[in-house]
Amino acid sequence: MLSLTILGNNSALPAFGRNPTAQWLQTSQESILIDCGEGTQWQLSKYKLKPGKLTHIFISHLHGDHYFGLIGLLTSMSLLNRSKPIHLYGPAQLQAIIQIQLDVAETTLSYPLHFHSLDTAGVIASTQSLEVSCFKVSHSIECWGFMFTEKKIKRSVDPEKARSYEIPAAYFEQLQQGKDYITKKGTIIPNAEVTTPTPAPKRYAYCADTRYNETLIEFIKDVDLLYHETTYLKDQEEKAAMRFHSTTLQAAQLAKIANVKQLMIGHFSAKYESTDLFLVEAKSIFENTVLATEGSCFGL
Amino acid sequence: MLSLTILGNNSALPAFGRNPTAQWLQTSQESILIDCGEGTQWQLSKYKLKPGKLTHIFISHLHGDHYFGLIGLLTSMSLLNRSKPIHLYGPAQLQAIIQIQLDVAETTLSYPLHFHSLDTAGVIASTQSLEVSCFKVSHSIECWGFMFTEKKIKRSVDPEKARSYEIPAAYFEQLQQGKDYITKKGTIIPNAEVTTPTPAPKRYAYCADTRYNETLIEFIKDVDLLYHETTYLKDQEEKAAMRFHSTTLQAAQLAKIANVKQLMIGHFSAKYESTDLFLVEAKSIFENTVLATEGSCFGL
Repeated sequence: MLSLTILGNNSALPAFGRNPTAQWLQTSQESILIDCGEGTQWQLSKYKLKPGKLTHIFISHLHGDHYFGLIGLLTSMSLLNRSKPIHLYGPAQLQAIIQIQLDVAETTLSYPLHFHSLDTAGVIASTQSLEVSCFKVSHSIECWGFMFTEKKIKRSVDPEKARSYEIPAAYFEQLQQGKDYITKKGTIIPNAEVTTPTPAPKRYAYCADTRYNETLIEFIKDVDLLYHETTYLKDQEEKAAMRFHSTTLQAAQLAKIANVKQLMIGHFSAKYESTDLFLVEAKSIFENTVLATEGSCFGL
Repeated sequence: MLSLTILGNNSALPAFGRNPTAQWLQTSQESILIDCGEGTQWQLSKYKLKPGKLTHIFISHLHGDHYFGLIGLLTSMSLLNRSKPIHLYGPAQLQAIIQIQLDVAETTLSYPLHFHSLDTAGVIASTQSLEVSCFKVSHSIECWGFMFTEKKIKRSVDPEKARSYEIPAAYFEQLQQGKDYITKKGTIIPNAEVTTPTPAPKRYAYCADTRYNETLIEFIKDVDLLYHETTYLKDQEEKAAMRFHSTTLQAAQLAKIANVKQLMIGHFSAKYESTDLFLVEAKSIFENTVLATEGSCFGL
């Protein structure tokens, strides 16, 4: 079970009450922040998400609207005497940017900050509940997409049924893993008889700032939820390409070809007061589209 | 005529709707930002102050609650295609912090950013309407106070009276500077007869994070308005000293000894929900005290 809360959905400039990019991904075991634009610590407070619970932070790239809030969040957690470690993933230079700001303030964080530099596509983290991989997207500077894949969830044992077959509790862990039980007399008790299946592991793909790029399809194919930027409406295709961004139709087209289950769009240009047309245009190609509206929460 | 708008008044951690330090000083000619905590660009927008008008920025020190909003503000102005230069004053390392963040984003600002490193006390800027000097305060890291002094304002010529004495318009500039006029017949027309005096130049002293320090008195003596931090109430004198901060009574005591006309207090610790007691305590020693309440505007 993954739950995603949108903390900001605007591109470069804050505008019309919209904030820069940040998303909170909650799993059964971990609390994860994806990008961290300026003001994210206020957004966390507004939506009652506790920074103290954070375990992992993923930064897609080093344009300010995706990370200028990080140093404030990291140092605030230190002022609150956090002790639990944080794992931070991002482009290599991010470490130096953080370090110089800690150095000039003569600050040592109160908790271990484990920095993981992104350099090649592939698996970058394996947490208790997730496997996280990264892949390059097509932006003007080094920029990473992230795939969050739930780990296979154990089957649930029905304890009454298991007892009725005299299966010892010590064997329950193997039942959870899908194994059958063989009684002392050699009778096979099929796993499905004493366990209930759990939902298939879910996958969330986050494609931050990027041009339309069909090479992404191999990474995002069939995902349950795809976040793809749509900085511009369809009539700005040329400007979008020039600035390494995408339009509504391009994001929807990619979602369609990649056969994703749901598309979420965001990173709206500050030139648009309303985001209504973004939804209309994207839906014209890919019906199951939603806006990354600030404060909204998606369960998957 | 100086006008000061408070954009934030809290110490290190944002709390109870209070934002980190930033102040906007408006003169007849310039728009000046003093410190720039995270989120300052939102605060400017909230109080309808136009970043495009900014001419000078002064950063007291490199603790995050005084400058984490600077890089966002600088880059937002560039995205808006600003062309007018900005003069930025702060500790030397600030330049490297800005530069590394521009470099990783492959950004060149659209306008000239003139950086002035602070190293010794004295006059650091002379603008059309102000002289600005800096002085060291007593904090855990290098930290500067600023004194903003209005330049002597020209006297106003009463054109009707001047004409009645047949003073040529070409001489008006000298009248503004206080000179008398001598007619062709040798009669002296005293300056005060044809001009009206203007108010005395005002002085605003900004003392960011500092311990109680009587050596500041020589710099702030007799100022019209003194901003002095009061992170803590009077019962926290020991903690204040340990953390290089001040209490209400200490700020008020300094204002009293320095014979300032008005004291403004701020930089309240996040541990206090209400700031009412700050005012009560400071007033017990220095009656003409006001709180640096966000959004309030002081004319001087």
